[in-house]
Amino acid sequence: MSFKIAILGAGPSGLAQLRAFEAARDAGADIPEIVCYEKQNDWGGLWNYTWRTGLDAYGEPVHSSMYRYLWSNGPKECLEFADYSFEEHFGRPIPSYPPRAVLRDYIMGRVAKSNVRQYIRFNTAVHWVDYNETSGKFAVTVRDLKQDKLNTEEFDHVIVATGHFSTPNVPYFEGLEQFPGRVLHAHDFRDACEFKGKDLLLIGSSYSAEDIGTQCHKYGAKSVTFSYRSQPMGFDWPESFTELPLLTEVIGKTAHFKDGTSKKVDAIILCTGYQHHFPFLPNELTLTTHNRMYPEGLYKGIVSLANPKLIFLGMQDQYYTFNMFDAQAWYARDVMLGRITLPADDAMAADSREWVARELKLVDPVDEIDFQAAYIQDLLESTDYPAFDVTAVAGIFKQWEHDKEADILGYRNKSYRSTLTGTLAPAHHTPWMDAMDDSLEAFLKVKQEQPAKETV
Amino acid sequence: MSFKIAILGAGPSGLAQLRAFEAARDAGADIPEIVCYEKQNDWGGLWNYTWRTGLDAYGEPVHSSMYRYLWSNGPKECLEFADYSFEEHFGRPIPSYPPRAVLRDYIMGRVAKSNVRQYIRFNTAVHWVDYNETSGKFAVTVRDLKQDKLNTEEFDHVIVATGHFSTPNVPYFEGLEQFPGRVLHAHDFRDACEFKGKDLLLIGSSYSAEDIGTQCHKYGAKSVTFSYRSQPMGFDWPESFTELPLLTEVIGKTAHFKDGTSKKVDAIILCTGYQHHFPFLPNELTLTTHNRMYPEGLYKGIVSLANPKLIFLGMQDQYYTFNMFDAQAWYARDVMLGRITLPADDAMAADSREWVARELKLVDPVDEIDFQAAYIQDLLESTDYPAFDVTAVAGIFKQWEHDKEADILGYRNKSYRSTLTGTLAPAHHTPWMDAMDDSLEAFLKVKQEQPAKETV
Ligand SMILES: Cc1cc2nc3c(=O)[nH]c(=O)nc-3n(C[C@H](O)[C@H](O)[C@H](O)COP(=O)(O)OP(=O)(O)OC[C@H]3O[C@@H](n4cnc5c(N)ncnc54)[C@H](O)[C@@H]3O)c2cc1C
Ligand SMILES: Cc1cc2nc3c(=O)[nH]c(=O)nc-3n(C[C@H](O)[C@H](O)[C@H](O)COP(=O)(O)OP(=O)(O)OC[C@H]3O[C@@H](n4cnc5c(N)ncnc54)[C@H](O)[C@@H]3O)c2cc1C
Ligand SMILES: NC(=O)c1ccc[n+]([C@@H]2O[C@H](COP(=O)([O-])OP(=O)(O)OC[C@H]3O[C@@H](n4cnc5c(N)ncnc54)[C@H](OP(=O)(O)O)[C@@H]3O)[C@@H](O)[C@H]2O)c1
Ligand SMILES: NC(=O)c1ccc[n+]([C@@H]2O[C@H](COP(=O)([O-])OP(=O)(O)OC[C@H]3O[C@@H](n4cnc5c(N)ncnc54)[C@H](OP(=O)(O)O)[C@@H]3O)[C@@H](O)[C@H]2O)c1
Repeated sequence: MSFKIAILGAGPSGLAQLRAFEAARDAGADIPEIVCYEKQNDWGGLWNYTWRTGLDAYGEPVHSSMYRYLWSNGPKECLEFADYSFEEHFGRPIPSYPPRAVLRDYIMGRVAKSNVRQYIRFNTAVHWVDYNETSGKFAVTVRDLKQDKLNTEEFDHVIVATGHFSTPNVPYFEGLEQFPGRVLHAHDFRDACEFKGKDLLLIGSSYSAEDIGTQCHKYGAKSVTFSYRSQPMGFDWPESFTELPLLTEVIGKTAHFKDGTSKKVDAIILCTGYQHHFPFLPNELTLTTHNRMYPEGLYKGIVSLANPKLIFLGMQDQYYTFNMFDAQAWYARDVMLGRITLPADDAMAADSREWVARELKLVDPVDEIDFQAAYIQDLLESTDYPAFDVTAVAGIFKQWEHDKEADILGYRNKSYRSTLTGTLAPAHHTPWMDAMDDSLEAFLKVKQEQPAKETV
Repeated sequence: MSFKIAILGAGPSGLAQLRAFEAARDAGADIPEIVCYEKQNDWGGLWNYTWRTGLDAYGEPVHSSMYRYLWSNGPKECLEFADYSFEEHFGRPIPSYPPRAVLRDYIMGRVAKSNVRQYIRFNTAVHWVDYNETSGKFAVTVRDLKQDKLNTEEFDHVIVATGHFSTPNVPYFEGLEQFPGRVLHAHDFRDACEFKGKDLLLIGSSYSAEDIGTQCHKYGAKSVTFSYRSQPMGFDWPESFTELPLLTEVIGKTAHFKDGTSKKVDAIILCTGYQHHFPFLPNELTLTTHNRMYPEGLYKGIVSLANPKLIFLGMQDQYYTFNMFDAQAWYARDVMLGRITLPADDAMAADSREWVARELKLVDPVDEIDFQAAYIQDLLESTDYPAFDVTAVAGIFKQWEHDKEADILGYRNKSYRSTLTGTLAPAHHTPWMDAMDDSLEAFLKVKQEQPAKETV
């Protein structure tokens, strides 16, 4: 085929794009020349754990925000690939809430069986993307990290799959510069053992706050205080937990809150979310959005209205993850292959505005889940991605919300039924609160394949 | 004047360049149009303390590697500006080893009295520098951090003054990914109180290891273990200190060393130096060097052999700091103003090679001090930077080395004589080991002007 595409990033979204083209090729189609640039030394995106924080061995921002002892925070039945079940990968049913290493193994398992690794240039960071109006091509400038050399290559399409949970949003609070202890963002959180016996303050009231708070408790923190901007999480917390309004100031070790209360703390973790950050995109091509269900400026949630040859994958807030990335990647593939014809610019803009308007009316998680289900369903209708029961998955998400509400420290002991295989997941051999070893071996009682070693 | 220059960075080196042009203007000279790009919200470079680590509020790498309670590690008499004595700034003699805030006040004091702030575009990060052979101009692309917009402007000369102690050099050691505690690089070290009562392992045997180790001891660390690659520092350490050969592996909390010994530790601080890192320079313009006395590829240690219109300030390893940056900036100014004519390319290359050859013969700190003194003297001969006694300053450096050798926890209580004013510094009111408050107010017993507040 006579065109060439660049995929930026080999995390779950970038891998979905590679897999989508591979599926087309297996079915006899002609596919374009593909180059996938990945700055890490392995595929897997956020799912590659690293002990590093801040900058990596080459001075590039460390990508992963994941930490040791992280377990899936949603049932695996909600994120199953429609073309590759957990049962197929592991050869048997496994419990519903696997730790990071197990999920990583599953995501990589699908692509490892294919031929797509050949397309990926590892240790290669994208620094700049330019579009030339005359030639109609993108020039992508990358840094070969091992050689410390820049190279530029031309492409007909660019797919941005660099994720949006890596550049921390780090607000300032009065007095932080004088706090005599560690202040960090969730992005730099690595090992809860560091906080054993400590009084912790976590700012934020979303997934990171909830999970880092409960995890630190599990590994021995003395107390956990959450500080919220909008509203408390309101779970049925253990006794050593407190939820307080927003931090106003820190004086010495004492944190002061909007309601006039105060508390002495040893460390402060800012669980204040992430920024969509595309330092490699020029003004006219960039995507400007916060973490929301339907980012503005995208048709079908993926095609850039500024330049439809530019595609963004996985840029929405996520209930659905891997299977949504697949639905997007299959759609994007069919656009690039000319199987789907894009409507005129104004029609695409109008369609996008409609979804955004619909998003603005959502009032609670149940609405959001239904919205994202409808979005995925809409994408699936136009492609040959294997059908899966999006609505049934939405049902599992709602059950999950309910189970969390009922038992924040115990919800990971629940089991759900795969919509693909119909199998009900077995219970795990150890309740989550007692499962201190999060390795694949401990979870499955088998030997784990190790991710690529650092070779700097 | 009909040309335009860009200064990248408003740390001590960039400020020296601004001050050099200002001095010429005050003396009646025509000076070029100047734009200085600075990514922080204030001038001062590394001397601006920040509680942030990793990425800043805009997703740019945090620049400063300085930490709370940092004191000058060399006598202030060694870094005095020849045109602005400490006595002139503070209105009276002050002790020889001031804390960070006091030195910052002094550096900023000189420029605050001038008109140079107008040239600086704060919150503006340089992303890319291109040279156009045809026009003979540089195109500098910057990111306005507050607007999140990229802009490009053209210049005749570019002065790179972005420092080289900000991008950490972070080697991997076997087992770090499983260490159940904090692992950090010196660049991210902020507050020693975090390590009170802890057993610390510090990798490296240079300034950062020595200073972070002694500081943690001062603020209550239980023990400090240094691990060296080449050789131990060999100071007369307190009892709770140990120096061991290189770390080979970490298993759980236990660190294992090359000599077969092992030690249980709570945190690991990699004091393994920094990388010269210029992600904004194309292959053909970049400077590739490690931290050495005379980087290759520069004429007079500043003029790029690849393109003499490109200048690098402060890129050498540093005994001399502020006065060396001045000597470089005055020289660079006179090159740009046409007062100094550069020799032909091959003559510049030969001169540079000679200095590099000379550097390779240096065997100890005394040699290095003399070498850097000779280098500065060489620069000073060609400009009107006020004469100062470079050799006498070298003598103070040698005395300092001796004083450290004699008493690593007490050397900061010593006093030296200013080569400018002839005044012997008074003793400080409190010995360094007992001076827990490092503020300017505590040091001078006066009120401090606060650096610009964060306004994100
Ligand atoms: C702490 C945390 C926990 C999570 N837990 C779960 C969970 O339990 N279940 C779940 O389903 N989802 C979870 N997620 C959501 C997560 O976003 C998705 O699972 C998934 O990783 C997103 O895939 P992605 O490919 O879009 O982005 P990423 O996984 O972020 O991958 C992006 C890739 O792009 C590369 N890249 C970035 N910039 C460049 C560049 N300039 N040049 C070259 N390469 C670049 C990165 O190295 C990376 O490999 C979690 C997210 C976080 C932050
Ligand atoms: C921990 C530590 C302690 C030190 N202590 C001492 C001491 O006690 N005494 C001493 O004399 N020296 C000390 N130094 C040495 C220090 O290098 C110099 O004092 C001095 O700060 C160097 O000045 P500079 O302007 O060359 O670089 P820097 O101070 O690093 O300033 C560079 C400036 O460039 C800006 N910049 C960087 N990249 C960009 C970009 N892409 N776009 C826009 N702006 C950018 C930065 O924000 C910064 O303001 C210390 C260094 C370290 C790391
Ligand atoms: N597998 C796991 O266990 C796990 C663990 C952690 C994270 N994750 C995933 O990681 C992703 C990101 O989650 P996240 O919680 O980091 O981000 P998020 O969902 O975007 O939440 C950001 C939080 O920060 C708060 N916030 C933002 N700016 C603030 C400010 N200036 N002051 C105070 N509060 C501020 C927000 O408060 P408002 O509500 O007021 O806006 C919100 O509570 C999600 O996809 C999640 O599923 C998964
Ligand atoms: N004011 C203050 O008190 C203060 C405090 C800290 C720093 N500083 C300044 O900061 C600057 C930087 O000092 P620095 O000490 O960070 O850097 P540095 O002087 O460049 O020293 C780097 C150290 O790291 C070691 N190293 C590098 N790679 C290694 C590896 N792979 N394994 C093991 N060891 C490795 C080196 O060992 P080898 O010897 O084997 O090469 C060396 O000991 C200096 O200008 C210093 O004056 C000042």
